Amino acid sequence: MRILTGLQPSGKLHVGNYFGAMEPAVNLQEKGEAFYFIANYHAMTTVRNPDELREFTRELAVDFLACGLDPERAVFFRQSDVPEVNELAWILSTVCPVSMLEKAHSYKDKTAKGISPNHGLFAYPVLMAADILLYDSNLVPVGKDQKQHLEMTRDLAGKVNEAYGEGTLVVPEPMIREGVAVVPGLDGQKMSKSYGNTLPLFGDEKPSKKLIMRIVTDSTPVEDPKPVDGSLILPLFRLFADDEAYRRMEEDHRNGGCGYGDFKKRLAEAYWDYFEPMRRRRTELLADPGYVDSVLAAGAEKARNAASLVMDRVRKAVGLA
Amino acid sequence: MRILTGLQPSGKLHVGNYFGAMEPAVNLQEKGEAFYFIANYHAMTTVRNPDELREFTRELAVDFLACGLDPERAVFFRQSDVPEVNELAWILSTVCPVSMLEKAHSYKDKTAKGISPNHGLFAYPVLMAADILLYDSNLVPVGKDQKQHLEMTRDLAGKVNEAYGEGTLVVPEPMIREGVAVVPGLDGQKMSKSYGNTLPLFGDEKPSKKLIMRIVTDSTPVEDPKPVDGSLILPLFRLFADDEAYRRMEEDHRNGGCGYGDFKKRLAEAYWDYFEPMRRRRTELLADPGYVDSVLAAGAEKARNAASLVMDRVRKAVGLA
Repeated sequence: MRILTGLQPSGKLHVGNYFGAMEPAVNLQEKGEAFYFIANYHAMTTVRNPDELREFTRELAVDFLACGLDPERAVFFRQSDVPEVNELAWILSTVCPVSMLEKAHSYKDKTAKGISPNHGLFAYPVLMAADILLYDSNLVPVGKDQKQHLEMTRDLAGKVNEAYGEGTLVVPEPMIREGVAVVPGLDGQKMSKSYGNTLPLFGDEKPSKKLIMRIVTDSTPVEDPKPVDGSLILPLFRLFADDEAYRRMEEDHRNGGCGYGDFKKRLAEAYWDYFEPMRRRRTELLADPGYVDSVLAAGAEKARNAASLVMDRVRKAVGLA
Repeated sequence: MRILTGLQPSGKLHVGNYFGAMEPAVNLQEKGEAFYFIANYHAMTTVRNPDELREFTRELAVDFLACGLDPERAVFFRQSDVPEVNELAWILSTVCPVSMLEKAHSYKDKTAKGISPNHGLFAYPVLMAADILLYDSNLVPVGKDQKQHLEMTRDLAGKVNEAYGEGTLVVPEPMIREGVAVVPGLDGQKMSKSYGNTLPLFGDEKPSKKLIMRIVTDSTPVEDPKPVDGSLILPLFRLFADDEAYRRMEEDHRNGGCGYGDFKKRLAEAYWDYFEPMRRRRTELLADPGYVDSVLAAGAEKARNAASLVMDRVRKAVGLA
């Protein structure tokens, strides 16, 4: 059973990315033959600076490995190391009604925001379908925002099979992500780069902790009980603390006698400690770029082998070979 | 100076294709480094039968060689043998406004006809731009219907150069086709498959000549003069006959004494003789499929080498490498 996940390299990762995407992705390697790719073709629809694209791609590779992706077990590669995906995208385009793409939420959202769309954004669901179908993926974990894209992928695979014979493409199943909590940002809204409320995943210690110390709190005196509901500190603390420490902080809120500064310090410590092993691994990886290169090269080769099996079949079926 | 021409494999060629496309294309090999490709990816937007696609592609290869394409001098290949073109198409998509594609005549014409468009048709100008830009083509011969597509190609190359640096892509120049006559069909309209008025380029002798014998004429008696203006026979005869023979037939029209049956026989003979050397070459090629394979394989290799120079440059410029 092959499970495919792609992540876009779009800049420094934050804690919301970790709990919302990296951690659930890494857990999949226990559940089947996991394929992970860094979606650098997709990133081109928004990242126009080549140095940034290279840097983001590289950083995502390092960060993914630091977060526990095991290259012995999973296949980990850059999207652009298997350019065949673009050929499959063309083939899918010839069976894809324009009207299907006009209905894509991601496209409608962007045009509704007044963004003058490029054709890459419009064709995004076709390339995403090719990403999935190129590897005969069986399962694709999807959040709410990707559900429609997976439906399109299944549709396109069905159309190809109808036109060129059953079995030309494997129709993937969605794997609805459950239990992925919304990670609150420093202001209580969902943590998101666009809200400017993020906590970095791998930032420097002082400035990162300082962000926590600057969380806005009310002016309850130290000795008084603090409100638990609406706390900006407790939900973040829950992400990093063990049950015992969490219970204690909640009690200290109810009982009074501890100031917000103390709570923030505990939060900052817990946050810092939580990512300590990953940070250490990351430092090792940064010191050994040859290793990261070799992981990506080996991943690319495995992915290309898998892709060429599929493309040989598809090219024969459609009459290109 | 590199000159690029692509032809879509869409079925048996007729005399209109020969004078309108094949002959002018073949003449280009005298004028520079000619690249010719069989556009089988493009054909997929309309040809859904894999056996047909393979057959049409193969036939076009044989016919092109029979018509005088010299593989020692020109680079001749199948579009799908250089799948890199799809990667370049993706890159171009990320700088291509959706509004540009909505304005494409070829797309508007098809939707105006009530054809429910697939995304391949919509994205056609992007793939065509990639076809051209992938080989650093300097000149592209264009008829009236392709002028806008070449303008788009130049636009997209300009946008890439603006975003990623001058010289990333070579901006091609159009080479407006002159002196390419409209070839009349058997009913006097432009010869076109959709009018059902075509004369095959490489058909069997009897049925092909019979098509000429069935040309509709008026009922002027044999001994009377025949109208020259509006003749369906004379303009076709001009394509195949030398000046002397043409002059004689025109005189025989004016003087009377010759019947339409006689004129048609002369036309049928001239038509048949005109293509005799190509027909003979074609028979040789059909008897030696290994040769055709080797020509296409050698062409693919040369084209891929040219493409990889360009793609190395482009991938670096945009940050994929």
